[in-house]
Amino acid sequence: MHSFKFLSEKFELHFEKIHFPDEPSSLYKPAEYFIKLGGKRIRPVLCLMGNELFDEINADAWHTATAVELFHNFTLIHDDIMDKAPLRRGMPTVHTKFGDSSALLSGDVMFVFAYEYLNKINSAYLHKAIEVFNDTAKKVCEGQQLDMDYEKKDEVDLDGYLHMIELKTSVLLAASLKLGAILGGATQRNQDFLYNFGKNLGIAFQIQDDYLDAFGDPQKIGKQTGGDIKSNKKTFLLIHALETCSESQKKEINKLLNGNHDNKTEKILQIFRDCKADEWALQLKNKYLDEAFNDLEAVAVLSTRKEPLKELAQFLVQREY
Amino acid sequence: MHSFKFLSEKFELHFEKIHFPDEPSSLYKPAEYFIKLGGKRIRPVLCLMGNELFDEINADAWHTATAVELFHNFTLIHDDIMDKAPLRRGMPTVHTKFGDSSALLSGDVMFVFAYEYLNKINSAYLHKAIEVFNDTAKKVCEGQQLDMDYEKKDEVDLDGYLHMIELKTSVLLAASLKLGAILGGATQRNQDFLYNFGKNLGIAFQIQDDYLDAFGDPQKIGKQTGGDIKSNKKTFLLIHALETCSESQKKEINKLLNGNHDNKTEKILQIFRDCKADEWALQLKNKYLDEAFNDLEAVAVLSTRKEPLKELAQFLVQREY
Repeated sequence: MHSFKFLSEKFELHFEKIHFPDEPSSLYKPAEYFIKLGGKRIRPVLCLMGNELFDEINADAWHTATAVELFHNFTLIHDDIMDKAPLRRGMPTVHTKFGDSSALLSGDVMFVFAYEYLNKINSAYLHKAIEVFNDTAKKVCEGQQLDMDYEKKDEVDLDGYLHMIELKTSVLLAASLKLGAILGGATQRNQDFLYNFGKNLGIAFQIQDDYLDAFGDPQKIGKQTGGDIKSNKKTFLLIHALETCSESQKKEINKLLNGNHDNKTEKILQIFRDCKADEWALQLKNKYLDEAFNDLEAVAVLSTRKEPLKELAQFLVQREY
Repeated sequence: MHSFKFLSEKFELHFEKIHFPDEPSSLYKPAEYFIKLGGKRIRPVLCLMGNELFDEINADAWHTATAVELFHNFTLIHDDIMDKAPLRRGMPTVHTKFGDSSALLSGDVMFVFAYEYLNKINSAYLHKAIEVFNDTAKKVCEGQQLDMDYEKKDEVDLDGYLHMIELKTSVLLAASLKLGAILGGATQRNQDFLYNFGKNLGIAFQIQDDYLDAFGDPQKIGKQTGGDIKSNKKTFLLIHALETCSESQKKEINKLLNGNHDNKTEKILQIFRDCKADEWALQLKNKYLDEAFNDLEAVAVLSTRKEPLKELAQFLVQREY
């Protein structure tokens, strides 16, 4: 069994070797630029770990891990166009550097390369793996669409927000684990528990992400907090506050969101604290984390084989940065 | 054996039944809107014909024909964004009607649905079919990128333009035929000849398209001619004229392209005629059409089985509209 650190370094070495064709460089340079920006490579490592839970990591798991990471990068390139994001990992986004059309098209072609890696896997698993992959890809598109829809809505309820997060973020983590498990010969039951583990972990992760952006220690997380509040982003905290706080607090929040007020961030944070959205978020995070660990517990393999996944889950969700 | 008319009507009935999920409607309505705009459905019919050349049309060929048409529609949605095209088939383009982001994302999800149909085919052919499909998808992206690159260039040579047309237009026609053939159990040799038939036919078709836009009878083609000249589009005619006409004619063309001149279209058409670009284009079209028919001739099946493909080729390339 291998740790997240070991596998992510090994994957990075493997992924670094990916080169797109030289020509047309106006198509492939943007793709190459983006995958070289790096990232934590969590999804491919989840695929490798899901595979290693049942056997030694096989070649099919490497191909699929590569496909998953290419797919994830493709979605980020397109998301950045839609969100008009100037920066990604501290560097100019693809559309900022190469223009919208090249970003759109190099995203498209990266998606094809994902299927090319997927198509390298053993015939016995090909149908099933593509089915899971397609199903996930559709959900990720749906999640991004819901995210854009919700940003335009005045009110979004918690169930709707959870559903969007599940589609946009969680299902790809879950599917990465499941794909690794399928390729390791796991039973349907084990695949399902592992999938649910990934899904619950993903939601816990997003709750923490929202929490840290509001209440994290800027020194520890390496960036200024309050970014979500500044950009009026819908988060677990904001949605909960609007659902549970008093009418006057709600009015105050909406006033602060719809204007250019001094100390907007501090004032909204104070309301979050007053209606205990911070405590609630930590409890909700722990609820999903507990469910995730129950799911992992239910996977019928020797407990020692699960250690790397447990460590990764702790690392992802207990992290303070 | 079935005619193009019969198969295109049958495919249309089949394709009409495709429905995307109801929710999120902001994602799937644009996709549904676009595929309902219609089209000649040439590519899926080529897939069915490539299949019927070797046996009765099987279920796999229907799945693949659907995948090919969904892929084609996905590329059109994204191309329209990149080209900022207001209309497609006389109706507002997806991005005009639903916004750029929804057009981008509904194109992405349509691409996933293409792979979903492809994944329905028999395991024995799945690897090979996806390989051909991926290879083609990459080339189509490359072709679109080259097209955008060439539009910005002052000079493009004929070889470069032919290469772009091959990638952007021809390979998908060729691959549709080849996929049908693969699923009909064709030999590699027959697959290859059929692929080349489609490739040459595609180039002949594009030459004719460029020719008719300049010299066609507006009554017969149902639209005003000269659109390519008005929009300074690079075409076979323009590239040939710039390569072969005199220095003074070349200067005149460039002057006309780089300004807002009266009778620009008529003046450029006259230069095309003076340097015989019109005759040259018809000869070049016939050269590719002859090559296409030679390729079809070399496919080792009974000559009578090839009749529908011959008719379709004649219909596509001898057409006056």
